[in-house]
Amino acid sequence: MDTHEIEIRVRYNETDSMGFLHHAQYFVYFELGRTELLRARGGNYRDVEAAGLFLVVVQLECRFRKSARYDELLTLQTTLEKITPAKMHHKYRLYRAGELLAEAQSVLACVDRQGSIQRLPEDGDLPAWLARRAAAPPA
Amino acid sequence: MDTHEIEIRVRYNETDSMGFLHHAQYFVYFELGRTELLRARGGNYRDVEAAGLFLVVVQLECRFRKSARYDELLTLQTTLEKITPAKMHHKYRLYRAGELLAEAQSVLACVDRQGSIQRLPEDGDLPAWLARRAAAPPA
Amino acid sequence: MDTHEIEIRVRYNETDSMGFLHHAQYFVYFELGRTELLRARGGNYRDVEAAGLFLVVVQLECRFRKSARYDELLTLQTTLEKITPAKMHHKYRLYRAGELLAEAQSVLACVDRQGSIQRLPEDGDLPAWLARRAAAPPA
Amino acid sequence: MDTHEIEIRVRYNETDSMGFLHHAQYFVYFELGRTELLRARGGNYRDVEAAGLFLVVVQLECRFRKSARYDELLTLQTTLEKITPAKMHHKYRLYRAGELLAEAQSVLACVDRQGSIQRLPEDGDLPAWLARRAAAPPA
Repeated sequence: MDTHEIEIRVRYNETDSMGFLHHAQYFVYFELGRTELLRARGGNYRDVEAAGLFLVVVQLECRFRKSARYDELLTLQTTLEKITPAKMHHKYRLYRAGELLAEAQSVLACVDRQGSIQRLPEDGDLPAWLARRAAAPPA
Repeated sequence: MDTHEIEIRVRYNETDSMGFLHHAQYFVYFELGRTELLRARGGNYRDVEAAGLFLVVVQLECRFRKSARYDELLTLQTTLEKITPAKMHHKYRLYRAGELLAEAQSVLACVDRQGSIQRLPEDGDLPAWLARRAAAPPA
Repeated sequence: MDTHEIEIRVRYNETDSMGFLHHAQYFVYFELGRTELLRARGGNYRDVEAAGLFLVVVQLECRFRKSARYDELLTLQTTLEKITPAKMHHKYRLYRAGELLAEAQSVLACVDRQGSIQRLPEDGDLPAWLARRAAAPPA
Repeated sequence: MDTHEIEIRVRYNETDSMGFLHHAQYFVYFELGRTELLRARGGNYRDVEAAGLFLVVVQLECRFRKSARYDELLTLQTTLEKITPAKMHHKYRLYRAGELLAEAQSVLACVDRQGSIQRLPEDGDLPAWLARRAAAPPA
């Protein structure tokens, strides 16, 4: 298991009339978590797309436990749980000062520009795999 | 089971670099589906909040099957599956020309301004219940 | 002058903690106004991009006079004021029940995939010009 | 003149099909710039609202010079140019590695919960003024 932690401050436009962080916005935060987890491991999602690959979300699930408000500084824990040849499984835990606000999980697939499923690396090392793909594109 | 259907056209700002409707945006569409289902039954979510009640999302789940693109006209089917004293359960099916793009479900709770859980109407008639609450606020 | 009118209902996620439609969201509405003005004249912005052209915003200005709230049904008037070889000038007026909420104007340029400025049609007929471009791509 | 600088990384959902940071998103960045300028001067916009005051945008203008892309790290310079009894004037300059991407300006007014205009502090010291308001609410 591979976990990374980032801090995110709630922006004004991300709140709604109820005074809370809008529920759809949590999924934007989870995407930031994935991006920064990959960057912390030496990869970069821009390089993924430059190599002609796209990580697309195929499943999302979230339980909202407490609400968040404007300007609060939240902590997001992102964990890459599992890579199978077809899919990446992440888990997320969003906290405010140690209090759990939300728990979520996602499943991503890797496709090429034509939308065909691409096999993910069996050793789970996405940055190294991307480097190999970039160096040697398929004939 | 109570189902309602609306059409939604994908806006330019809702797409992303990949060229697709961004995955977090689906949850905004599902919220529109709930709003319009309530309106079609004679209720209005503004009246819910004016009565001091808030329907908060406590759980979301979505399976993404096909992607959508800018300017496509989508059809969203929203179904109120069940109301328990504590929660409302909705299901969603998003289509483009009859092709299923995504399936989702949500659970909402009803809270007052202080965040205390409020009992939902056992007969499932939210508009009538709201009318009664508005007419006779708690002492 | 060429004017078109659309109705837009304020979405919940477009409001903020203050209880109002967030100011950045007005520019999303103005973009919808341009899209629908073009569609009403027989054009489609998807076809513009399919022809390898992109209308990019180079200048925006907005005066906010009254705020809008969740679920309000607004009327947006979009006017194509002028097309020069280099730029398109639009004006916008956003109303709620006849009351002016905001006035704005934008300038757009037309570029190709490489970002080079493209000359706009001198007769101002963008749909016809796009049709000609699509039929006869440059050698 | 009072200037503050922050870094902002372009999020995936903030881009659009064209592959660029969507133009409406720039105004979200400018709002972050104002928030962080105030924080750097010892104030906090949450305290402003807690004191029953709201800074509302009444005018915006932006010139877009170059586009930005996903994951780029931008630098935003926010300057409080002038405070009159009625209005605050800010200027913004957004850069990528020293290259100017956009220039903008905004005018904000201060209103109370009823929407009545409130006089801003003549010495321009918003944090101190807020502290005074919070300590001595009007009779």
